[in-house]
Amino acid sequence: MNLKYIDGSVTAPLGFKASGVNARIKYDKKDVAIIYSEAPATAAGVFTTNKVKAAPVVLSMEHLADGLAQAVVVNSGYANACTGADGMAIAREMAAATAEGLSIKPDDVIVASTGVIGQQIPMDRLVPGITQAIGELGVDGGDVAAEAIMTTDTIPKKAAVQFQLAGKTMTIGGIAKGSGMINPNMATMLSFVTSDASIAPAMLKKALKYAADRSFNMVTVDGDTSTNDSLVILANGLAGNLRIETEDENFTAFRNALLELCVILAKMIARDGEGATKFIEIKVRQAASFKDGQKVAMAIANSNLVKTAIFGEDANWGRIICAVGYSGVNIDPGKVDIYLGDEKVAAAGSGLSFSEDRTREILQDKEVNITINLHLGDVDVTAWTCDFSYDYVKINADYRT
Amino acid sequence: MNLKYIDGSVTAPLGFKASGVNARIKYDKKDVAIIYSEAPATAAGVFTTNKVKAAPVVLSMEHLADGLAQAVVVNSGYANACTGADGMAIAREMAAATAEGLSIKPDDVIVASTGVIGQQIPMDRLVPGITQAIGELGVDGGDVAAEAIMTTDTIPKKAAVQFQLAGKTMTIGGIAKGSGMINPNMATMLSFVTSDASIAPAMLKKALKYAADRSFNMVTVDGDTSTNDSLVILANGLAGNLRIETEDENFTAFRNALLELCVILAKMIARDGEGATKFIEIKVRQAASFKDGQKVAMAIANSNLVKTAIFGEDANWGRIICAVGYSGVNIDPGKVDIYLGDEKVAAAGSGLSFSEDRTREILQDKEVNITINLHLGDVDVTAWTCDFSYDYVKINADYRT
Repeated sequence: MNLKYIDGSVTAPLGFKASGVNARIKYDKKDVAIIYSEAPATAAGVFTTNKVKAAPVVLSMEHLADGLAQAVVVNSGYANACTGADGMAIAREMAAATAEGLSIKPDDVIVASTGVIGQQIPMDRLVPGITQAIGELGVDGGDVAAEAIMTTDTIPKKAAVQFQLAGKTMTIGGIAKGSGMINPNMATMLSFVTSDASIAPAMLKKALKYAADRSFNMVTVDGDTSTNDSLVILANGLAGNLRIETEDENFTAFRNALLELCVILAKMIARDGEGATKFIEIKVRQAASFKDGQKVAMAIANSNLVKTAIFGEDANWGRIICAVGYSGVNIDPGKVDIYLGDEKVAAAGSGLSFSEDRTREILQDKEVNITINLHLGDVDVTAWTCDFSYDYVKINADYRT
Repeated sequence: MNLKYIDGSVTAPLGFKASGVNARIKYDKKDVAIIYSEAPATAAGVFTTNKVKAAPVVLSMEHLADGLAQAVVVNSGYANACTGADGMAIAREMAAATAEGLSIKPDDVIVASTGVIGQQIPMDRLVPGITQAIGELGVDGGDVAAEAIMTTDTIPKKAAVQFQLAGKTMTIGGIAKGSGMINPNMATMLSFVTSDASIAPAMLKKALKYAADRSFNMVTVDGDTSTNDSLVILANGLAGNLRIETEDENFTAFRNALLELCVILAKMIARDGEGATKFIEIKVRQAASFKDGQKVAMAIANSNLVKTAIFGEDANWGRIICAVGYSGVNIDPGKVDIYLGDEKVAAAGSGLSFSEDRTREILQDKEVNITINLHLGDVDVTAWTCDFSYDYVKINADYRT
């Protein structure tokens, strides 16, 4: 693929502006972000599978029903989840205020919130924040938007890629946030992606689902699926390509570029996991199916025992095979090989006498690779997570207060 | 029920002896336990659902196929899991050595191991330990047996109950170990139960499954299902009751007494969870089914975010409803009520303005009760866990080395 990484984020594609301002909703940091497309855009979203969905999630699903959107408004500080009818009214008010300031329709505005559950957003601070953010929209606003959506994140997450499609240059850019309450089966936490590609809503939705399953849905920090997770893409067509209408080679090129971007953002989330001291990549080889490989990889990625062992730089591979065994996949324990980095520690389900010096060296690194070969099929799946440290407990023992 | 708690454990029922000795298999502590019934006993077991089953689990399932057993041999230090054909031979050798010393058949010996995965048990130390343990068998040996099966446990776990059945006194006693790698869908970690009741194998199996589902399977410490979990019961009939052959009122009395004993032991495991500073009881009210209630209760009990919040004494009920939402149960978010202790913090899925002073007081206690009313049916289910502290991370960061 002719893919090129470029600087920038949601404002890298043609026709997008963004901003981020401090409305002092809860914290003394930037807390309101807006992303705006000058042209109407096709749009798609993937949202949390949690039965308890925040008001902005319910509203955004409604607004995406027609496959069109033109702006995204996000606040950090309050999740607007478990907030009843008042919370739903607040989400609608966020869309209405944004639409009015941009002279677009409210149902072309996507709304997202992140923060504490169960408390109402103070609208006397948020509405002026939206007005200010609209006033500050700019083609270099991607970076401040990435900052404004952060909560416990320690670094803003942003990326952009470019590729050629039938002689035209396509750009896809994105921002993301999230470092706790992160688990699969959803578009992990918040991520907003923009593109100047021209693509039909149904194709955009299909590409986004494909990319989400292999990127954000393969990241976990603590195994908790949030009430607010949202991944939304807007594609405004300003790159001038022939509109992608079917699953042809142009679709595949777009989908693969989108996947690449989502993987970059997803890995940034794992790297910035709450209290993380190490980034962990888990590769499952030769699974019978994608679903099986995903289950095995995520069982390992979610195991507190594996993650504390990696934090302690302890080559306790027994905890890895234990997680493989309870993953719910019909594995054959007698076939499982396990590697820490390039050191094979178990073969055919039994321990090998490996070099403790070598594994210590591997585990002392800030990036740890774990490979499991199931020898059951030909599907390879990768997941990303982080280790589990004292600081995870510290961060989460008094987040709310 | 005419149930009475009595002192003692596996040696409380008539005809049982036990012992625990230090064979220095790995640690300088008691590490070999034997439980022996003078009379042949009906027996049943519930074992880990992990696809990766330790050699002693595979062997014990084999030995229980005829519903009979007369002795249990247990070692701590090594799990004998992922140890290949050699590990299987070692498990058989443990049964053979025990059978020989007791002059019973090897397939009437149940074998269990707990400790590190993937390393072979040094038999030159274990076999003399078994011989010594047989020599020390006694009717007051339940306490030392409870000590010998411990690994990271900080207190031995033991209990006994007595009840009347058609004019006869029945006794059930048990020991248990486990404080990490604990999660449902199995007979959590190791527990051995004895009784002098006379009961047919099929009825014993049914009673044990019923009790396990409502006790050990409702306890979690860290969400990891071990390769070695085993719950085994031996009932030798020496109490002289008319043998329980059908699901009559005597069966129900026995089953309920067994459940009571298993709940006591299961709660001891949660209370002694690795690094625990608080014991947490989670009551799910008005679930549509037992399975639904179990899923909701265990989702909360396994949530790192809920458990770190309780450690931090933070009334962050949003994390509780979040876990309810991702439990996989078809709940109605608009019906969910949540209580911390006796303080109602959310009603019909939305936050209430509760007293922070009162919830702080409740959370400062060493025992925290969480109640969730789903308003969907008439089944109540209870789960037990502990909070998640710095010490959990510390204990598990360097367990192996």
